[in-house]
Amino acid sequence: METLRAIVTRRATAEFEKDGRITESATSDLLRAAMSAPSVENKKPWHFILIRKRKAVEELALLLREHESLLSASLCAVVCADNTEQRHMGRWAIDCAAATENLLVAAHDKGLGTHWVRVFPSKARMRESADLLKLPHHVSVFAAVFLGKPLRSPNKRASPLVEKKIHLETW
Amino acid sequence: METLRAIVTRRATAEFEKDGRITESATSDLLRAAMSAPSVENKKPWHFILIRKRKAVEELALLLREHESLLSASLCAVVCADNTEQRHMGRWAIDCAAATENLLVAAHDKGLGTHWVRVFPSKARMRESADLLKLPHHVSVFAAVFLGKPLRSPNKRASPLVEKKIHLETW
Repeated sequence: METLRAIVTRRATAEFEKDGRITESATSDLLRAAMSAPSVENKKPWHFILIRKRKAVEELALLLREHESLLSASLCAVVCADNTEQRHMGRWAIDCAAATENLLVAAHDKGLGTHWVRVFPSKARMRESADLLKLPHHVSVFAAVFLGKPLRSPNKRASPLVEKKIHLETW
Repeated sequence: METLRAIVTRRATAEFEKDGRITESATSDLLRAAMSAPSVENKKPWHFILIRKRKAVEELALLLREHESLLSASLCAVVCADNTEQRHMGRWAIDCAAATENLLVAAHDKGLGTHWVRVFPSKARMRESADLLKLPHHVSVFAAVFLGKPLRSPNKRASPLVEKKIHLETW
């Protein structure tokens, strides 16, 4: 797909096909896209936990109190930050956000659906998900991206350009 | 350009052509890409100040103590958040980060160079740039993206897939 088209037609996927499968090769492409994000001081503190086991995907979706529809996702990519690689929370969170957005756009480009479930900045959600995943203390959960084949045909409408959000030279 | 290629070959541009020009139409595409980012609770608190006046671009680059090479950027897109649209800093910052990454990828796709200068989370940089731009109190500066025609031919190498950043099922 053309880049601009992929970016402007991406939407969150509400429902996934049961038993959809995401290949290893597609998964590698998505992670390469995520790892291509810019990172302050080039520290790239992001890490990715790939969860494919059905029960584990469901447990995480339930823990995060998300819609039941996410339970049928084929894959959950948990985006984490290693605080020893970037100590400052405001910095690793921005790096992880850019990486996550790349992952979503690359997935949409491949016809996959995604649902970005926010974990950061909620301290409770960060703690609960870190506990479930048995993360070491120096690792923080940033987000959980649920992926799969979308149940409905993908959106084709571009996002609108909102003129009132654009200011020329000054506010 | 194919989406994945645009994402994995994007790099920060160090030097811009003097007197490069970015058309209105290209600028609209970049802003549409930015506005297509996901936003928590769909609040989309982002705003964009487009600075084209040479002196104003230079002033901002100098204020942010960035490399002199940025002074020749054709355009600076200041990504801001309206705190009345999203009050929580951790949330608007993540929305703005995703929007900024879309803008960078869309620009690279068009052969334009970008340099994402971080403002958030530094309180001093946020205050100084808000003062320079005479922003109202409810508006925060997230980042300044300097754009232009790159002086050197663009990077063609894909970012590597770093295996040690990938964890299967658990950390």
